[in-house]
Amino acid sequence: MNDKVINAALLGLGTVGTGVYKVWKSQEPEMADKIGSRLNIKKILVRNLEKAARKVDDPSVLTDSWEEILNDPEIDIVIELIGGIDPARAYILEALKAGKHVVSANKDLIAVHGRELLDAAAAHKVDFLYEAAVAGGIPIIRPLKQCLAANHMSEVMGIVNGTTNFILTRMTREGMEFADALALAARLGYAEADPTADIEGLDAGRKVAILASAAFNSRVVLDDVHIEGITKISAGDIRYAREMGCDIKLLGVARNTPEGIEAYVCPMLIPSSHPLASVNDSYNAVFVRGDAVQDAMFFGRGAGEMPTASAVMGDVFDIMRNIRADCCARIGCTCYKNLPVKKMEDICNRYFLRMQVEDRCGVLAEMTAVFAKYNVSVAQIVQKEKMARERAEVVVITDSVREGDFLTAVEELRRRESIHEISSLLRVYGEN
Amino acid sequence: MNDKVINAALLGLGTVGTGVYKVWKSQEPEMADKIGSRLNIKKILVRNLEKAARKVDDPSVLTDSWEEILNDPEIDIVIELIGGIDPARAYILEALKAGKHVVSANKDLIAVHGRELLDAAAAHKVDFLYEAAVAGGIPIIRPLKQCLAANHMSEVMGIVNGTTNFILTRMTREGMEFADALALAARLGYAEADPTADIEGLDAGRKVAILASAAFNSRVVLDDVHIEGITKISAGDIRYAREMGCDIKLLGVARNTPEGIEAYVCPMLIPSSHPLASVNDSYNAVFVRGDAVQDAMFFGRGAGEMPTASAVMGDVFDIMRNIRADCCARIGCTCYKNLPVKKMEDICNRYFLRMQVEDRCGVLAEMTAVFAKYNVSVAQIVQKEKMARERAEVVVITDSVREGDFLTAVEELRRRESIHEISSLLRVYGEN
Repeated sequence: MNDKVINAALLGLGTVGTGVYKVWKSQEPEMADKIGSRLNIKKILVRNLEKAARKVDDPSVLTDSWEEILNDPEIDIVIELIGGIDPARAYILEALKAGKHVVSANKDLIAVHGRELLDAAAAHKVDFLYEAAVAGGIPIIRPLKQCLAANHMSEVMGIVNGTTNFILTRMTREGMEFADALALAARLGYAEADPTADIEGLDAGRKVAILASAAFNSRVVLDDVHIEGITKISAGDIRYAREMGCDIKLLGVARNTPEGIEAYVCPMLIPSSHPLASVNDSYNAVFVRGDAVQDAMFFGRGAGEMPTASAVMGDVFDIMRNIRADCCARIGCTCYKNLPVKKMEDICNRYFLRMQVEDRCGVLAEMTAVFAKYNVSVAQIVQKEKMARERAEVVVITDSVREGDFLTAVEELRRRESIHEISSLLRVYGEN
Repeated sequence: MNDKVINAALLGLGTVGTGVYKVWKSQEPEMADKIGSRLNIKKILVRNLEKAARKVDDPSVLTDSWEEILNDPEIDIVIELIGGIDPARAYILEALKAGKHVVSANKDLIAVHGRELLDAAAAHKVDFLYEAAVAGGIPIIRPLKQCLAANHMSEVMGIVNGTTNFILTRMTREGMEFADALALAARLGYAEADPTADIEGLDAGRKVAILASAAFNSRVVLDDVHIEGITKISAGDIRYAREMGCDIKLLGVARNTPEGIEAYVCPMLIPSSHPLASVNDSYNAVFVRGDAVQDAMFFGRGAGEMPTASAVMGDVFDIMRNIRADCCARIGCTCYKNLPVKKMEDICNRYFLRMQVEDRCGVLAEMTAVFAKYNVSVAQIVQKEKMARERAEVVVITDSVREGDFLTAVEELRRRESIHEISSLLRVYGEN
């Protein structure tokens, strides 16, 4: 039966690594029936052998030497869960060159060096799979590359960061301000000690790059993605949005247009009737649109020990099936196009603009004249009772307009004495 | 370049067949880049050659002879879209035995003869794929068999029939009665000329059988699924449900419990806060729960020409990749367990019961005494102002109770003179 055992090594035994170890243990009794082979996690790379010993049944599998894993010819699959660019990139490239298959959940790396890793896998006829890098346990990479392969995808977008979705959900439901909701998220374990990558949109931006590459068959990297976070969103913005029939979500959006790919992450107003508007707390959801499938959505846990481990082990099982069927590298890089990526200023969206203006006759006329000058058409306008002496709050939602034109109009508004402050400027998700 | 063309035959050129033909045409320019091979639809089996001629570019591909396709050694893939048991079953078995791969969207057949077809595919080392048989364009079979393979799935359930979901949505939103909503569905093309299989729950039952088999690694067939339709649902039931914070949906439910598999289709109350409650119109959604992934949901178009064709062509592309990598039959039947299926009477659920009772002191006490006798615990009770002289309407939601016990209690209620009528009896979806 020995030829029916496939050996793997785990790099990292943090949250996801521990989850993978647990899923492996729980699947072991039926793995031979399910896949036709058994998996043996032969080595686990850790930094602190002593600390890790408490997490595994047999501490002799632990090692702090990457070379021990790389040079073990019995190890066929490397599961990289250490994250970050270095040394993960070097380890993965060395493993691929040594003829080992690699499963990775490393979005930081794949969003920047995805092509290099997939090319190396192809060159050495091995698999490099990364379902867990986007939206945790939610199947999305394999559906895009296989189930939906017969589509021209025009859009892939969604809520792909659980921390910010938790924060915005609390701000919406309880009227909390950003700082309080962030503190709560940290207290409940939904935000990391340094939440910068989440709240500034960087984590979501990496996932948009990976999703867009898989959906549009053209490589999109992190630098191609325009990124804004949620730190400037206030409870007041959310209240106004709801008055206008919308919620505010941190959306990652990628569109394939005749002029090129649009890829951005930013807080956006989205109609409350849209399926994504009801994706709350730390849940993630990815919405896709294709010429055949039309609209589809994938919803679930976007992070966490066990959901992410589910995706990692799904990839491991796939590689085990490939090894058994002798068809490794069956599906590699699917980016056979080379589409341009549009600049943010050339992208059209609708905008939500909240301003403090002088409360006198003629100010609205002045504002709308500026809009007209730059071809900005106003779809909705709300003026509230004045908040302070001689000061009124005006909220505008525009029709779709090229961002460059809109920002020029906003610059001109800022220079007007009657406009005291532009307190928020947000995009509105919708058909353009 | 000739060795890079893979030939397929299409059986049937109805709605889905026409969609597949369109998707094939639209994917043709980039198929070689995407898959590494080109697809040629060499033959199309139709009943009426003349009528079909208008639907294709080159009518010489049309044939009314199955043998012509079966005996063509150049045809590697057969795409079965004629539906029904006969002759589809014979054609598929003959094709598999002849070494041809088969893609099918035929839920009627797979829900009954799935094991036979998958066994035949395995015996002849060819692929038999059927992603389109459940939930149209929504990827669900491949996610269950691959992406989520490292889970013990405890539940797969959802809204898997678009016609009934359209009807219930209209009844909910506009207060229509069933017959009017059905007539509207027929007028708008959401219901077939003979809607029986949809409104009686049979179509959903077939999908539950296929989903449960894939999710629990144990074969569930149509006969194992308890099936009830929506014909008895009234606008009044929906109004009461909403008063109690619920919507009514036709749900297909499959659960894997220590005592066996539960599989049923019936109209159920579901809390309005559940993601499935907001799946409206003809949309479908499948909700899964696994020990690693936790909760995930797949949402999209469950039927229609192009969405179904998206799933069919995704399978065709997968087979083309398998042919190129020489690894056909890489994933076959995944039902390696042989779990028992529970009888409906042994399944526990909460119940919604609507009764017309005599309007006098002591009737509620009499009713609750009957419940207590059979261990039925009442969770919510509403008595409305009397509707007619000496007649009141009482609505009860119970706690979870074994169905056999509950029905015995209901039988006893029916025999009481003070209970004039049991006007509705519905199950309530939830944790048990």
